[in-house]
Amino acid sequence: MTSLDSATNPAHDLPDVSQLVVGVLGGTGDQGRGLAYRLAKAGQPVIIGSRTAERAEASAAELGLGVRGADNATTARESDIVIIAVPWDGHAATLSALREELAGKIVVDCVNPLGFDKQGAYALKPEEGSAAQQAAALLPDSRVTAAFHHLSAVLLQDESIAEIDTDVMVLGEERAATDIVQALASRIPGMRGIFAGRLRNAHQVESLVANLISVNRRYKAHAGLRVTDV
Amino acid sequence: MTSLDSATNPAHDLPDVSQLVVGVLGGTGDQGRGLAYRLAKAGQPVIIGSRTAERAEASAAELGLGVRGADNATTARESDIVIIAVPWDGHAATLSALREELAGKIVVDCVNPLGFDKQGAYALKPEEGSAAQQAAALLPDSRVTAAFHHLSAVLLQDESIAEIDTDVMVLGEERAATDIVQALASRIPGMRGIFAGRLRNAHQVESLVANLISVNRRYKAHAGLRVTDV
Repeated sequence: MTSLDSATNPAHDLPDVSQLVVGVLGGTGDQGRGLAYRLAKAGQPVIIGSRTAERAEASAAELGLGVRGADNATTARESDIVIIAVPWDGHAATLSALREELAGKIVVDCVNPLGFDKQGAYALKPEEGSAAQQAAALLPDSRVTAAFHHLSAVLLQDESIAEIDTDVMVLGEERAATDIVQALASRIPGMRGIFAGRLRNAHQVESLVANLISVNRRYKAHAGLRVTDV
Repeated sequence: MTSLDSATNPAHDLPDVSQLVVGVLGGTGDQGRGLAYRLAKAGQPVIIGSRTAERAEASAAELGLGVRGADNATTARESDIVIIAVPWDGHAATLSALREELAGKIVVDCVNPLGFDKQGAYALKPEEGSAAQQAAALLPDSRVTAAFHHLSAVLLQDESIAEIDTDVMVLGEERAATDIVQALASRIPGMRGIFAGRLRNAHQVESLVANLISVNRRYKAHAGLRVTDV
């Protein structure tokens, strides 16, 4: 079985990211709010971003834990790491508008392009290959990574749950950036950030959420994934 | 953490498949031989299939455990469940030639269409959407499922390892067929067969092997996956 002790936890030689400010664009949605909550609870400085500062501030006030709220542009400007948790249909427009604010930042795309019909969820195939590759194409001056795809928003937001029993697959082109994102994921109790390849292999990681939705329906679960033998 | 006791093991209400004959096409390759070994060790009647009966018989004799060897057509004809473990570049031709022998059978596609270059592995996109959907298109009279994608051939073949610490995502259109394949996977100690969606969501499951290859390189591991909260 996987073990979380320091000898085998792949986080044990990752950088200290505890002082880095994390912005969450789409932080008023379920996934974004859940991530903001877990990161803030772990002691990370967090800003929730939304289209309007008022909505972001209201969400931040609800969360407490020192979380701030701001409009998306301010959030991007004032953060070191920016998590993209907006709906897929607003993905390209949101990122295009923030190209300057996101320059030089570590961007963490966690968007899953999915369609839904009577048979459930299915993968959409972005022209660029994946949401993460679209982000990389739209943000040439940012350090784009992909992570946090397989988390249950329900579990993230459930304050009665102390540990999230899920590994986080982290993808990217630049080792220093993926190390930072792995370290960030590993701050949340129960999670480990695991390097899982380059952005050209992001599509299947994003799309796998369709399968987890099938698992959840069949087993009435909030399924996540653990990587074994790591 | 995941638990394998009967209360939570999703295999506990699956059918008894212990008498079903399992054929493994491509059974002389690493993945096929590993699966044949684990299934035979679990008590399953197993036939290894290969293009020539001689090669299959030699592999079967090496494995022992009552495993038989035969050419692909005989293997398909004499099996109840047929696992497709051939290389992707022989996938379409092998299945097309066996359409009649595979009629009425449960077919379990475990082929991962991947390309390799200097940067490692990447997903190939079959015209039909996935290897499993190609199988379904070529075998309209078979009960096509997909499973066993994320197993390490090294671990499967290592006789010193008693349990394989990996869940098996099982995909398909027909509940009775996926139940049988889940039950089959769950016979191998350590494994659980987990329903994970329809064949239209097979591409990402097949492609995720590219990510596991990246994990293996980074961590010098033989990575597998566990589904949590199931």
